This record gives sequence, C-alpha cells and structure tokens, in this order.
Amino acid sequence: MTRIAIIGAGPSGMAQLRAFQSAKAKGQSVPEIVCFEKQNDWGGLWNYTWRTGMDQNGEPVHGSMYRYLWSNGPKEALEFADYTFDEHFKKPIASYPPRAVLWDYIKGRADKAGVKHQVRFNSAVKNVEFDQQDRMFTVTVDDHQKNETYAEQFDYVIVASGHFSTPRVPEYEGFNIFNGRILHAHDFRDAVEFKNKTILIVGSSYSAEDVGSQCYKYGAKQIYSCYRSQPMGYKWPKNWTEKKQLLHVDENSAYFADGTSAKVDAIILCTGYLHHFPYMAEDLRLETHNCLYPDGLYQGVVWQKNPQLFYLGMQDQWYTFNMFDAQAWYVRDIVMGKIALPQQDEMTSHTAQWIKREQSLKNSEQMVKFQGEYVKQLIAQTDYPSFNIDAVNEVFMQWKKHKKENIMGFRDKVYRSVMTGKMSKQHHTPWLYALDDSIESYLENENHEQEAM
Amino acid sequence: MTRIAIIGAGPSGMAQLRAFQSAKAKGQSVPEIVCFEKQNDWGGLWNYTWRTGMDQNGEPVHGSMYRYLWSNGPKEALEFADYTFDEHFKKPIASYPPRAVLWDYIKGRADKAGVKHQVRFNSAVKNVEFDQQDRMFTVTVDDHQKNETYAEQFDYVIVASGHFSTPRVPEYEGFNIFNGRILHAHDFRDAVEFKNKTILIVGSSYSAEDVGSQCYKYGAKQIYSCYRSQPMGYKWPKNWTEKKQLLHVDENSAYFADGTSAKVDAIILCTGYLHHFPYMAEDLRLETHNCLYPDGLYQGVVWQKNPQLFYLGMQDQWYTFNMFDAQAWYVRDIVMGKIALPQQDEMTSHTAQWIKREQSLKNSEQMVKFQGEYVKQLIAQTDYPSFNIDAVNEVFMQWKKHKKENIMGFRDKVYRSVMTGKMSKQHHTPWLYALDDSIESYLENENHEQEAM
Repeated sequence: MTRIAIIGAGPSGMAQLRAFQSAKAKGQSVPEIVCFEKQNDWGGLWNYTWRTGMDQNGEPVHGSMYRYLWSNGPKEALEFADYTFDEHFKKPIASYPPRAVLWDYIKGRADKAGVKHQVRFNSAVKNVEFDQQDRMFTVTVDDHQKNETYAEQFDYVIVASGHFSTPRVPEYEGFNIFNGRILHAHDFRDAVEFKNKTILIVGSSYSAEDVGSQCYKYGAKQIYSCYRSQPMGYKWPKNWTEKKQLLHVDENSAYFADGTSAKVDAIILCTGYLHHFPYMAEDLRLETHNCLYPDGLYQGVVWQKNPQLFYLGMQDQWYTFNMFDAQAWYVRDIVMGKIALPQQDEMTSHTAQWIKREQSLKNSEQMVKFQGEYVKQLIAQTDYPSFNIDAVNEVFMQWKKHKKENIMGFRDKVYRSVMTGKMSKQHHTPWLYALDDSIESYLENENHEQEAM
Repeated sequence: MTRIAIIGAGPSGMAQLRAFQSAKAKGQSVPEIVCFEKQNDWGGLWNYTWRTGMDQNGEPVHGSMYRYLWSNGPKEALEFADYTFDEHFKKPIASYPPRAVLWDYIKGRADKAGVKHQVRFNSAVKNVEFDQQDRMFTVTVDDHQKNETYAEQFDYVIVASGHFSTPRVPEYEGFNIFNGRILHAHDFRDAVEFKNKTILIVGSSYSAEDVGSQCYKYGAKQIYSCYRSQPMGYKWPKNWTEKKQLLHVDENSAYFADGTSAKVDAIILCTGYLHHFPYMAEDLRLETHNCLYPDGLYQGVVWQKNPQLFYLGMQDQWYTFNMFDAQAWYVRDIVMGKIALPQQDEMTSHTAQWIKREQSLKNSEQMVKFQGEYVKQLIAQTDYPSFNIDAVNEVFMQWKKHKKENIMGFRDKVYRSVMTGKMSKQHHTPWLYALDDSIESYLENENHEQEAM
C-alpha cells in the first residue's frame, strides 16, 4: 500500500489530513498516512507554549506565539471553505479572534474529520532520505515518548513544518556587553514582562508591529522601533518612536543611523525567520527566502526535482488557512493520481514565469491579488469548495486601510464572510481594552466590565 | 591512514587535540585528526555568547555561561599538569578567576600546541553511524560556512560535546499563565536584568547557588530559592530565603510545599542539564544521568559495546580540566595501540565495580576522593605528568569549608598550586565588589577603585 509521511501537524499538516479524509468520505481509496508531530498536541504555532529555547525533550521549541496574540488579519480572509466559523462556534463572532479561539477553530474541523489517530505526537523527524533505487523515502524519527529512534519507509513525503519557528538572529556590535535582555520575537511570551520598561524593537514587519503593539497595550513605558529601509509609517501612540537603522549598542543605550541614541531596558529582535529543514537530506532541502513563489516548487508545492516530495505553506503569507487547504487538496490529488504532472522542464518554466511575475509586483494590492490568483488556480484543479477570491482580496485591502487609519483600533472592525455572506459581530470590548484573551472571555456575549458598572 | 573524529572543541576536545600533539612532539606517528565544532571559536562553554535559544545558523545555542561568571571552584583544582597558570599569565593570579581569564588559559595551552588547524568551525555534526561490515564510522556534518552537508569516514569517534548545554526544563502548574519571565539557567545571561526584581530560583545545586549569588551581587531586591530534598544551607544574605518545593504558580505568585507563597517577578529554572546526543545513532548513544561513573563507559571513557568510540568528560564533575586531560591521554594511547583493552566482559565487570563503589559514597569528601582516585589510575597508565591528587582533594575540602563559612566571600580565599607549589595571590578586589569581570580588569595589579580614592 502507498504510504505517505506528513511532517508536522500544524495548520498545513492538518489541512493535508483533512484533504485525504474528505476523499475517503466520498468513498475513494486513500493511502496510508502517518503524520509526525514534534509537540504533544496539534495546531503548530497555534498550540501555545510558555517554553522558549529548548523543550522538555531537548528539541528546539516550535512555538513563536505569545500570550494575548490576536489575529493580525481578519478571520474572513482565512476561513475554511468547508468549515465556517459559524459552523464551529454556532454563533457569530468578531473578526480578529485571539489565538485560543483560532486554535479551537482549526482543531474543530480536524476533530470533526476524525483524523487525530493518524498523528504520532512527541515524534521529531531526524532525517529524511530518498533512495533512487527503490524510489522510497526513509524517514528517521525520535520517539520521545518511548525514548526510541526508528526508521520507516514512505512513497511520498509532505513537509508541513512551517517557516516561522527558527529565528533569524542578527548580531549588532555591543550585544555582548548590553545589560538588558536581548531576545528574538520567537522567544517573546508575555508583554507584561515589559510593563514600565523602555524597549527597542528591531525590525519593521508584522512581528515588529504586533510585538510592539502588545507591549504598548500592556503598559510599556516607551517603545522605539527601528527600520532598515523604510518606517512602518502607522500613526503610533505618543510613546512609540520609529528610528532609523540600529548601528550598535553599549551597556544600556542603542545608537541609530540618524545620529540619535536612546537608553533602553530590553531589545526585541523582530528580524524574521529562516526556512529551516535540518532533517531533510541536502538534495531534498528547500532553500528559499520568504517570498510569494519559492523557486523549485511547481504550483508552489511540488518539489520539482522529485515529485514524490511536497512542501506545504512555504510562501510568504497573505492567504493562510484556506491557501493551505488549496495546496493540500492539490497535493492529495497528485498522490491519488487524479492530477498528472507535466515534464520537469515544463514545471521549471511554469515556476519561472510565476517568479518573474512576482518580481514585477509593485505594491501590496498587487501582491494580494497575485497570491489570490495562485490560490484560485489551485482550487480550480480539485474539488475543494470554490469561493470568491476577489472578495477575499477586497477584505485584505480593507484591512490594510483600517490599519492605516488606526493601528491600535483596526481589530475593532468587522467584515463580511465570503463563505456565509454574513457580517461578523462587533466584539464586546475594544481590542485595546480587552486584556483577557481567553476563549471563555472572548465568547461571552456581554462585556463583564460594562456589566459590573 | 587512521582517521579520528573529535566532536566538540571545548575543554575536552582541546585536551584530546593536545594529547595527540604531545605524542607527535615526542616523535611518534599520530593519526589524522578532524575536530568538528559547531561554534565559530573554540573553548566550548567558556566561549561566551549573548545568544540564547537558537543561534545564527538555526542550531541550538551551546553556551550556558553568563556574564560575570567567576570560577565556582579554585583554579588550583583544575590546573593543567603540563601548562600552569604561572606559565600562561607570567605572574601569580588569584584562585577564582572570571570566565574570560579561564578561557584565555585553556586557549593558551592549545595555541602553544598549534592544533587549531585541526578544528573545523561552524560545523555541526548531524549524524554518526557505525558500519559493522567495514568497521568505520560515517560522520555527517552541516558546514554552516559553506552551507553544505557532507559525510566522511573515520576509524574512531571521540564525543566531546559536553553535558551542560541541553537544559532539563520541568513544567509546573501555572507556568502558562505566569506574567513574568520564565527561563532556564541555560538562557541566563546578565544579572543586571534582575536588578530590583524579586526572583525565584528553582533548584538547589551549583546553578541555583551561583545564579542566585550573581543576582544578589548585581542588586536583585529579593531572592527565593526552593529545593526538593534539602536546602543548600549556606548563610544567605537577609534578602535570600530558601523555600520548600515549588508546587505551582499563578499570574504573579509562587506557592511552596510549606504552605507559604511569594510574589515574584521572574522564575529561573536551575534544574540541570540532559546528557543529550541527538546526532549519535541510537546504538551509539550514551544514556546516563549526571553521576561520577556513567554506566557503559570502561574507565569512564571507552564505549564498551564498541571500543572505537569514546566519550570524554561525561562525569559529574569535581575534577574538570585535568580530569579531561587524564581521559584524553588515556584515549590517545588506546587509539595509538599503547594500551590494550581487556575483553568486553572484563570491561563490563570493571565498570560495575566502580558503579557499586559510587553507590556507597556517603558524603562529598568521599565523592571527591572517589573521583580523585579515578583520575589517579588513568594518569598512571599514560605519560601525562603525574601530580599530587591527594593535595587536590584537600583543596576541594578547603573550598567546601570556605563556602560553608561565607558563601559570598569564599572566592576571596587563596590556595597553593599543586603543580608549582606556589600560593596564589589575593585578588585586588573582593569578589562581591568586583563588578567588572573583564580579563583586563582582572589582570590589573592594583585596585583602580582604591587608587581613585
């Protein structure tokens, strides 16, 4: 029987499990699937951990999420086409749910599909090799529950271990003498730690925006952020100042390219993540920066050099959960022989064309539409329920506008579900004042703080 | 030609390089040696890094040392028999040098030996396997400088990657809701971060003692430490309280087994380290807790199941640098055929006897003497310069006594070198007031603070 290894049970891996189960539910014969997950539960990054650095098994901690993280994009842009928020929560909820709520949502679909038995938890993949002779992969795994290492053979390998787990950690002169904490966003866990502190955020992308906003919300005294190319440019609160590039630090101050300096208590490196697959044999290892169309992956997922290998979700992401779905359904249909792949040179030139197009993109609207079109053409090839991608693109544009208008208030906006046509519900408390991010608090119908008044 | 792989260029790996060079200097023909080092310089833990978690190459950070670390034992107990502190520093220094001074010392011997060209830096060993057919090891390495993975074959493998790098990180109830920082001692870097803070130290061994003392020295407001079996029992300063076992925490408080609780700002887990060799094939992997005589290692170093494999420095350590030397010289002479190993069953029973003896040890004096005897019998088998182990045992006993008398003052004591017979020199500033731990400050002849008066 054909055997498939899925590496990682986060949103991408769970989408892949659901894709196969969906075919099975329609009476189709599906391969044997084993999903290896390093953590002790599924959900990938959405499975919050207080741990940083190395975990209880001596494995690098996967989690990069922090307490009080709320979705930084509207849920209407990431909704599953086959499992809506309304189906899961049985009532309307607001557009920017906190982490625990989104985790609950993705677990809800996977639980409904009944695929958890296919996941081997506490199982860290150590090595993946391909044998040209018998055209099989050997996957070597550390089972941390049994304290055993074993190897198994598979016909297909689907890498779904994500690319927001291994921090890119640059060094600046003076870091070895700075007296405060220096951490990467990967190790950021609780903004309360920085209450009444002056922090320096290095970077100007999503992590910088959101980690800084968290620290503001939970009472940081002063926030500096610094950029290499251009400022984030939002209307920041009074105690948030954007600075030019960091040059160096000393025991307690940071020095910037504009000639200014500032005393800071802590430095948070929001400097991005590495696509990092140390467990893949070198000839199977994806090497890419964070972009919309990684080279070497036909249709964004097929390892061109050997189409028995796939990578899910390796794109820079506007689209997320439903893009992973589109990819997972597509990969499933290749594995199940419903989609035939073209010759290698055709795959190569197809990818090259997309990459050329990506290089010509000039602004975020074009980027969103580019990725939307990518998702569209994937969905057209499978039975994944089609949905109005143009409408989702429009949600992304609204989101950008709302952030521009009010970076500390955009999460109070609501959007219409492309899947159900219904408007989402205003949350009971403005984001800036919603300090409790628990699912219980979020799903309450009334604002207790107001009730108490 | 016989090829030897040494994994790690810390104190043990450097001792092994020096051992072979010493034979070569005497005109003997030595094998080809390749030492693989993950970091970009040698010295292992003594090579300080500000980094925590994952390094610039996506590898787990090796370093567990922190700023302002001073030796927690007298240098007279770890002095090399073939390279004294006097030879290196050309003048007497005090007995408890800071990290940078000890790093300089171990580099001094290795530099003099001219062995650095044998080390491949930025080279992380990924896998070690043994082929029963050709009786060779295959060592697979990630070269992070060239961004390449390659494999090479070796006749012998010597594991010298240490066992104070992979933290043992227990979870306590409430850690996922605690509002302050939770870190393992492995990620502790700068005590100044905890100035004016209340910290909880979990653990009662060397890390707990020293991390807590650092925080005290640099101005922590209040220190709590907690123990499972028994208190450390030193005469702590007024603002340091020992508590019984930690039971759980909530948002800002810790609750102990004696029914008391305390508000704390940060929790530092001084809960030890794992012997962790994920890169070794399972059948070659040492599995042991931290003890004086790990099972499976004849004479503490020979992998009994396959005497082409060795582990250096895997013991719980009273003796350190000079014990690694004793081991490295002994391993060298096995590899070079000067020492013949007994049959496997003889090795097994020899080890079993030592383990039985270890189990009967009742106090630290007996433990020191046990390890001293182990070192003695290793040295007796090679040409490593013999020295007065009984006198070193006595230094350890003095050290214990001095700690008991004054835990914040023991580092001001001086001892006589067993190697040179000379007394060490009183340091210019008491440890508690020596806030600058740089080698420049340490090697100054006068106390500048006093001069300035």
